[in-house]
Amino acid sequence: MADPSRDTLETFENPFPGRNFVIETICPEFTSLCPKTGHPDFGTLTITYIADKHCFELKSLKLYLQEYRNHGAFYERVTNLILDDLVAVTQPRWMKIEAAFTPRGGIRTTVTVEHGVRP
Amino acid sequence: MADPSRDTLETFENPFPGRNFVIETICPEFTSLCPKTGHPDFGTLTITYIADKHCFELKSLKLYLQEYRNHGAFYERVTNLILDDLVAVTQPRWMKIEAAFTPRGGIRTTVTVEHGVRP
Amino acid sequence: MADPSRDTLETFENPFPGRNFVIETICPEFTSLCPKTGHPDFGTLTITYIADKHCFELKSLKLYLQEYRNHGAFYERVTNLILDDLVAVTQPRWMKIEAAFTPRGGIRTTVTVEHGVRP
Amino acid sequence: MADPSRDTLETFENPFPGRNFVIETICPEFTSLCPKTGHPDFGTLTITYIADKHCFELKSLKLYLQEYRNHGAFYERVTNLILDDLVAVTQPRWMKIEAAFTPRGGIRTTVTVEHGVRP
Amino acid sequence: MADPSRDTLETFENPFPGRNFVIETICPEFTSLCPKTGHPDFGTLTITYIADKHCFELKSLKLYLQEYRNHGAFYERVTNLILDDLVAVTQPRWMKIEAAFTPRGGIRTTVTVEHGVRP
Amino acid sequence: MADPSRDTLETFENPFPGRNFVIETICPEFTSLCPKTGHPDFGTLTITYIADKHCFELKSLKLYLQEYRNHGAFYERVTNLILDDLVAVTQPRWMKIEAAFTPRGGIRTTVTVEHGVRP
Amino acid sequence: MADPSRDTLETFENPFPGRNFVIETICPEFTSLCPKTGHPDFGTLTITYIADKHCFELKSLKLYLQEYRNHGAFYERVTNLILDDLVAVTQPRWMKIEAAFTPRGGIRTTVTVEHGVRP
Amino acid sequence: MADPSRDTLETFENPFPGRNFVIETICPEFTSLCPKTGHPDFGTLTITYIADKHCFELKSLKLYLQEYRNHGAFYERVTNLILDDLVAVTQPRWMKIEAAFTPRGGIRTTVTVEHGVRP
Amino acid sequence: MADPSRDTLETFENPFPGRNFVIETICPEFTSLCPKTGHPDFGTLTITYIADKHCFELKSLKLYLQEYRNHGAFYERVTNLILDDLVAVTQPRWMKIEAAFTPRGGIRTTVTVEHGVRP
Amino acid sequence: MADPSRDTLETFENPFPGRNFVIETICPEFTSLCPKTGHPDFGTLTITYIADKHCFELKSLKLYLQEYRNHGAFYERVTNLILDDLVAVTQPRWMKIEAAFTPRGGIRTTVTVEHGVRP
Repeated sequence: MADPSRDTLETFENPFPGRNFVIETICPEFTSLCPKTGHPDFGTLTITYIADKHCFELKSLKLYLQEYRNHGAFYERVTNLILDDLVAVTQPRWMKIEAAFTPRGGIRTTVTVEHGVRP
Repeated sequence: MADPSRDTLETFENPFPGRNFVIETICPEFTSLCPKTGHPDFGTLTITYIADKHCFELKSLKLYLQEYRNHGAFYERVTNLILDDLVAVTQPRWMKIEAAFTPRGGIRTTVTVEHGVRP
Repeated sequence: MADPSRDTLETFENPFPGRNFVIETICPEFTSLCPKTGHPDFGTLTITYIADKHCFELKSLKLYLQEYRNHGAFYERVTNLILDDLVAVTQPRWMKIEAAFTPRGGIRTTVTVEHGVRP
Repeated sequence: MADPSRDTLETFENPFPGRNFVIETICPEFTSLCPKTGHPDFGTLTITYIADKHCFELKSLKLYLQEYRNHGAFYERVTNLILDDLVAVTQPRWMKIEAAFTPRGGIRTTVTVEHGVRP
Repeated sequence: MADPSRDTLETFENPFPGRNFVIETICPEFTSLCPKTGHPDFGTLTITYIADKHCFELKSLKLYLQEYRNHGAFYERVTNLILDDLVAVTQPRWMKIEAAFTPRGGIRTTVTVEHGVRP
Repeated sequence: MADPSRDTLETFENPFPGRNFVIETICPEFTSLCPKTGHPDFGTLTITYIADKHCFELKSLKLYLQEYRNHGAFYERVTNLILDDLVAVTQPRWMKIEAAFTPRGGIRTTVTVEHGVRP
Repeated sequence: MADPSRDTLETFENPFPGRNFVIETICPEFTSLCPKTGHPDFGTLTITYIADKHCFELKSLKLYLQEYRNHGAFYERVTNLILDDLVAVTQPRWMKIEAAFTPRGGIRTTVTVEHGVRP
Repeated sequence: MADPSRDTLETFENPFPGRNFVIETICPEFTSLCPKTGHPDFGTLTITYIADKHCFELKSLKLYLQEYRNHGAFYERVTNLILDDLVAVTQPRWMKIEAAFTPRGGIRTTVTVEHGVRP
Repeated sequence: MADPSRDTLETFENPFPGRNFVIETICPEFTSLCPKTGHPDFGTLTITYIADKHCFELKSLKLYLQEYRNHGAFYERVTNLILDDLVAVTQPRWMKIEAAFTPRGGIRTTVTVEHGVRP
Repeated sequence: MADPSRDTLETFENPFPGRNFVIETICPEFTSLCPKTGHPDFGTLTITYIADKHCFELKSLKLYLQEYRNHGAFYERVTNLILDDLVAVTQPRWMKIEAAFTPRGGIRTTVTVEHGVRP
């Protein structure tokens, strides 16, 4: 399985660029590996954005996220990397990712990253 | 079954145009077809608006939404089209549609479109 | 059973007029008749207000709302009328009514009306 | 779109016929038409069974249920018909279908049909 | 509005009399009057039965239950009367009615009546 | 306020003694005093029974339970006493009381007592 | 049992007066008497405040609230009185009390009172 | 802090030994140490029993359970030990303990032990 | 990553073999690959058993289940295989596995397999 | 067990210091001792912050919080102390701690403390 690459992501033309509308996509089946222990991590990604010229295509998003399945990544780093990739590919007016990970050692963590200012 | 047409929508006179009051209508039984796969999509539409001179009539809204049953339409496009039709027919002071679709491939999407600024 | 009349509503003196405090009253047992079909409608009224000199008395509110039991009234109209009656009787600094009706034909509607600006 | 036909259903060989194990499949996106009004009905089917030699294949079950999309059928009849088709095709040791339909006129109905006796 | 009468109830032929299948119908909008105070009572009726030759028709059930709207009836009595009427009209193999009333004076009551033995 | 006495309880004649039907009454506002500390206890009583000749009247039940407001009583004792009083007054075919008390010191207790065997 | 008195309330020194931190205390076991009917009322008090020099002590708050157990008081009045007492004793930078009472006659009321402006 | 000892447990005489009634006590604040890692474990104990001559006293139960706070114990062992101690002290007609522990490594475990047969 | 092997599973001696007690272990982070599409599947396993001489060790169970991460397996097959492996290693008096998979194409499936008869 | 010390806390370098992103960590297994009674307190800490140069490491946070296990501390004091320690060690741009404690004497308290202003 290849390393995560933004080349996997495909886009389509925003059908209503004249309007600032919001797309929220919830991916509850994200999983990667802890770089320290090698054990799997699990989380739910909520990606919210206002597209400019391009929207990301859902099937390609799914394949892109699957590339993290055997990839080692800390919570804070992986959330920022996914934001960077999605921003690079869609150049949105605004984007936010909330990544809520399942508990480890009785503690659970959510990382929220944002690109731009919501219009 | 005819294609979706704004002619199906009927209106009645706003009984209290002097007051900016809010009408929220929730339609959990929206269904259309995916243009790519031909498989049905399902979603819940929440339409919220402040009427000016006209309110949409609920029976005609139901018939209008049923016209999407065998119609192919992507999430982003269909939500914007319904907003355009409802705005054209009621000319509201403000209107918002939130369309929450059921999961596909472990991913679910909500599209939120807005017309005008909430007074 | 008499038609709804604001004369049914009784008030008592606001015990703390020096303070802008909020009273919220939830009435989940509102029912009236649909003027088109004659069938009963059901809904939950949430009345929120900041009193000035007068508060409405709860027993009389209950009797007033019961007067809609065999009265025909559309959603938008009945909510505005009840607000008008409660405002006329209590002259509040601010009042809001949210009327959430049960589903009909798979669609449910909530009407929210407001008098004045919340201090 | 063709009428519902059990020929659409495909099966695969039960991988563990020596054990009485239970398969429960929940289909929350069932929709058909009311034969009286022509309006769409919506429901959730829960199919539970103990296979003998054959299990039904999920993709073909989905296609089979989609054939009801433009088909007129009363609640009681459609639930019994689906049971008959699934039983004919899989010859299970036991099967039960619970069909929970969404409210109409403030009333909602669930139909539960069973084939054979649960071992 | 007429007094409740079992003549309002209509039936249709059981489409699958050879099978003991269960029909559950939930009516959350039941309302009658308290014979002592004249105030409205509200409740949810859950009617479950195994039909023999006849099923009750849902539209007629709705009209029948609406006849209690201005009718005085104690909880225990009204639940037994509705069972008697539905049994007289459908002659079921088994029937149960659970009537859950809303709280009065901080106390709420549910009455459950049954006809015959569930096969 | 008087001590709890079964004389407060009133009954009415069972309107359908020929049928074994179940009456469930939920009283979430029960309060008494802890005999050891003098502090108030709070709980929810669920009384379920099959009446023979007599049903208890709800208004009198409410008054009877209010008599415990300033009365000292341990959980186990008070639940059994209430069962004894209700049985003495109604002579039911079967009765059960479940008393669920609110937490004290991080621990919460539910006492369930039964008279006779459910037919 | 004595009438409610602010003398029952004890305070302790705010351990971190240099920081505007928020203390929220939820008391779901408040009960008083209705002055009109003599019947008990029940409610949940949520007290939120930013202390200045003094915090109220929880055991004494509990004893203070218990003094309302046999005290007659209307909803609006009792909520304002408790705020006045807590403000007098702690002199907070800001305080809010939300009192949510249980339903009576199918209607439930929440009273929210505030002292000062939240920093 | 002493090791857990059944001597901490106190009992009182069953006030109604003539009746088989059920006492359920829920303790959501149980904590002990994992003997392998030394890290704390957390769980909720639900103790259900039918007393014979003796009931356990709640304050002493709380103190007894607190003795596990710095005590190393595996899930299966600790649940059986607590049952043994409670049975030794109260000699109940029947007793069951369900111990539901919080997740560790994404896995959570519940242990259920029983003494005697529920009458 | 190795193929799933029962050699990964470790056991420890049942500390209370004289008592038939129940151990329930819930693993919400199970994931494998669909052999047809290569896409990941996700599910929650609930393993319940009454041990005889041996209990399975939780850390080794976690490692064993992780071996399915890149392994292709149909729902029905994988659930039966895990049961076979756990039975072979622990020889329990009784064991049940319920595997609830997440939705695919709007349909979700739960497979329940059992070994022996619950004592 | 040592007294709580900020030396236990370890940090790692913020991987994306150029972005104001939010980390929320929920610790539902916090426990300390009440200094007045010696009995254990339990609570859930929600720590939210925007890191500057340093993030706290989760394993060390867990060990640090475990140091309160046998430590006496009042609600208001312990919450402020933990904030002080975490701020000293990570020097965040903004940090908030919400500590929700379990009920005592029917009353439950949540303390919320904040450092800096959320950017």
